Amino acid sequence: MDPEEFRRAGYAVVDWIADYWTTLGERPVTSQDPPGTVAAALPPAPPAHGEPVEAVLADLDSLIAPRLTHWQHPGWFGYFPANTSGPSVLGDLVSAGLGVQGMLWATGPACTELETVMLDWLAGLLDLPEKFRSTGRGGGVIQDSASSATLVATLVALHRAGEGRWRQSGVDRRYRAYTSTQGHSSIDKAARIAGLGADGVRPVEVDPVTQAMRPEALRAAIEADRAAGVVPAIVVATIGTTSTTAVDPLPEIGAICAEYGVWLHVDAAYAGAAAVCPELRWTHAGLAHADSYCFDPHKWLLTGFDCDAFWVADAGELIEALTVLPEYLRNAATESGAVIDYRDWQVPLGRRFRALKLWFVLRWYGVEGLRAHIRSGVALADRFAERVAADARFELVAPHPFSLVCFRLRAGDEASAELLARVNATGRVHLTHTRVEGRYTLRLAVGAPQTRQEHTDEAWELLASAATEILTD
Amino acid sequence: MDPEEFRRAGYAVVDWIADYWTTLGERPVTSQDPPGTVAAALPPAPPAHGEPVEAVLADLDSLIAPRLTHWQHPGWFGYFPANTSGPSVLGDLVSAGLGVQGMLWATGPACTELETVMLDWLAGLLDLPEKFRSTGRGGGVIQDSASSATLVATLVALHRAGEGRWRQSGVDRRYRAYTSTQGHSSIDKAARIAGLGADGVRPVEVDPVTQAMRPEALRAAIEADRAAGVVPAIVVATIGTTSTTAVDPLPEIGAICAEYGVWLHVDAAYAGAAAVCPELRWTHAGLAHADSYCFDPHKWLLTGFDCDAFWVADAGELIEALTVLPEYLRNAATESGAVIDYRDWQVPLGRRFRALKLWFVLRWYGVEGLRAHIRSGVALADRFAERVAADARFELVAPHPFSLVCFRLRAGDEASAELLARVNATGRVHLTHTRVEGRYTLRLAVGAPQTRQEHTDEAWELLASAATEILTD
Repeated sequence: MDPEEFRRAGYAVVDWIADYWTTLGERPVTSQDPPGTVAAALPPAPPAHGEPVEAVLADLDSLIAPRLTHWQHPGWFGYFPANTSGPSVLGDLVSAGLGVQGMLWATGPACTELETVMLDWLAGLLDLPEKFRSTGRGGGVIQDSASSATLVATLVALHRAGEGRWRQSGVDRRYRAYTSTQGHSSIDKAARIAGLGADGVRPVEVDPVTQAMRPEALRAAIEADRAAGVVPAIVVATIGTTSTTAVDPLPEIGAICAEYGVWLHVDAAYAGAAAVCPELRWTHAGLAHADSYCFDPHKWLLTGFDCDAFWVADAGELIEALTVLPEYLRNAATESGAVIDYRDWQVPLGRRFRALKLWFVLRWYGVEGLRAHIRSGVALADRFAERVAADARFELVAPHPFSLVCFRLRAGDEASAELLARVNATGRVHLTHTRVEGRYTLRLAVGAPQTRQEHTDEAWELLASAATEILTD
Repeated sequence: MDPEEFRRAGYAVVDWIADYWTTLGERPVTSQDPPGTVAAALPPAPPAHGEPVEAVLADLDSLIAPRLTHWQHPGWFGYFPANTSGPSVLGDLVSAGLGVQGMLWATGPACTELETVMLDWLAGLLDLPEKFRSTGRGGGVIQDSASSATLVATLVALHRAGEGRWRQSGVDRRYRAYTSTQGHSSIDKAARIAGLGADGVRPVEVDPVTQAMRPEALRAAIEADRAAGVVPAIVVATIGTTSTTAVDPLPEIGAICAEYGVWLHVDAAYAGAAAVCPELRWTHAGLAHADSYCFDPHKWLLTGFDCDAFWVADAGELIEALTVLPEYLRNAATESGAVIDYRDWQVPLGRRFRALKLWFVLRWYGVEGLRAHIRSGVALADRFAERVAADARFELVAPHPFSLVCFRLRAGDEASAELLARVNATGRVHLTHTRVEGRYTLRLAVGAPQTRQEHTDEAWELLASAATEILTD
């Protein structure tokens, strides 16, 4: 495809996306077709000779788009948002067009330096502790997701806890990772990947009302492990847990980590973005204790997946934990020590130029534009929560400091599960569920870029009327 | 940014990329500016209020583009290629616009099913063993890179070697991974991440001429480990090593793995793509022994980074090794058992709709178009190697079955290193280096999408004339 063919086809694809966004609200949020529908419609092999882009776009319309789960739909309230935006898409487009692979500074100087600066910009935007900025020993990097950030944090923590042996001998004694019972599943997965197994993670109990980690339970767990010869390696505290957006008490947890010399990683995957608003920065109190921190601009900050922002207070320790330097990657810039090679800050070797989409987003929206987006989500969630609270058939579950509201029917688990199924079947909205203290709970997470008050109001009306049906059935 | 603003700005970015590709050959391949140039030119914080896309594009021109390493440049011969193409960029653009997060089938049915079918298409295209197709117990998945494929293979191998204990207890005994001394650094990194440490990898010696693994040395290593109570977990064989594109003898290695019950992962990151051409499929002989296999369409198959294609013969074992299922991810489709949830096939939880770019590439080029691309690279490398062989000042190093040619000056390491520095300083071409049997060796890897005979010929002329300068200095 030569540049002129690309220009023509590129316009067509841009049009396709603009039209998709324009019509998104009219589509059902999820597909109703059974598994295998798409696969059965595709030929068994690629064509022998090339086809025009128009043929692919036609199939995109007829075959793919109707079988998507539309995460950008204004009625999308599932999981956490994974919102994107025009400038993010454009930044990613530039990245794809450049085709730069930034594993080393030398293989993409601008790719590396823009990333360093964007992470500094974000650190300023969230008012993160000074130690995470690149001006000192710390610094930030883009990971694909918070899962990978947790894994990387776990590895550096093992390097530290292993007192120099881990790189050579691996997991040669029993280590422990701690997180609350509400910690994300990626913490279990990271421990499994790192060779600690399920035994390597100790779930710490939470307050039944706030769903936040109980610091005294953490202390007891660490004490018990130390007495049993198990080495405490890492505590993962969460700002905004996945089930209910609980906020673990960092000041107390941080003090315990400092006392026992345990790595503190703070996972603020979804809720971290809220700190662009000064009035929501209370959630980051105590963050100065953290050795590492991450949040996902790809969840609630209008930057398309994948973009997790991960910081460490001591980049040297991170690099030491992860670096492997074969001859074919040696180069003068690396050996000068004056540059960052981000390959040493992550699991894979290769990397895309993801800082571009952050740059496009931060400049297009500006600080005030991003604050407006967060505030809109919080306000819509508050409004929705008021509706729930005002209806005696429903109850709110857990606090809702951000844009997620958890609730259920007082009539019980079965009625609540039926409620979820019925509103999702309308195709107008999509919510997901969790269990809180064992009880089935619906989650409404606001954050899709097109979601406005009419959409959260519609969600409430659908829920209220489905509740009426269920409770009178 | 509303859809109409996106349409307008989207055209501008498409134009920017088309113009970039048009002028690429005139730019120096690498930046000559010192570290910190880009960072110093950026403001310390994002703007308070939004800016237009044009302002960002202007900075892209003046600030970013001149400090890139241009991987798509026709004079790019470094590392392995990371080529992309118009249709790949368009597929990625659609993916970014849809903003679908396909962690579960339920969160993107078409995202999941198109990926399954694309991996089946690729398996057919490379004529991989039937067991890797999704029609049986096997199947394929897109990983970000071969590094992650190796890590995932290592984890499943530990799950198998651990006889059911690894998921629970982690690395509770000594395991070993084997690869040749020429295996990629990601194998060491995977072992470190998996908790095996440097001690967990045994480098197996290679034939000094072919640089391929010596099977008898592998057998001896496995025997010695078993005798010492170390559990052999995985052998990583390579088709096309990074230094010289050596091809490990899979038939013999596979037989040894079968005899001792050790997982065989085949890393064909760069060279796998060659198998789209029937005349190059000899390199895959013995692949029927493999438990897992990967290659990178993002290296030499016109698909932009990141796109590693990874297959396993037994998907059930892979899922068992990696799955963690919290309540908030439970859904009817998953529980039916009728769908694939690709989150269980990879390290992170979230995932982009990367199958789209493969779909666009495979349909735009068709099988014959992809074969033509590979054949062009091999022919240009052959032509270049003939020039080297015909010049008595140079010597070829190791066989060159694909599109990488390794060579050096007979005058020695210092002269060869100086040669590399001088030709790269011209800005017309960029090559990298390695060491083969301890001796400094230049590498010329053909594969950038715009590279034609005039460019490899120019590379040779620059090398020959720099050699004259160096040898007469």
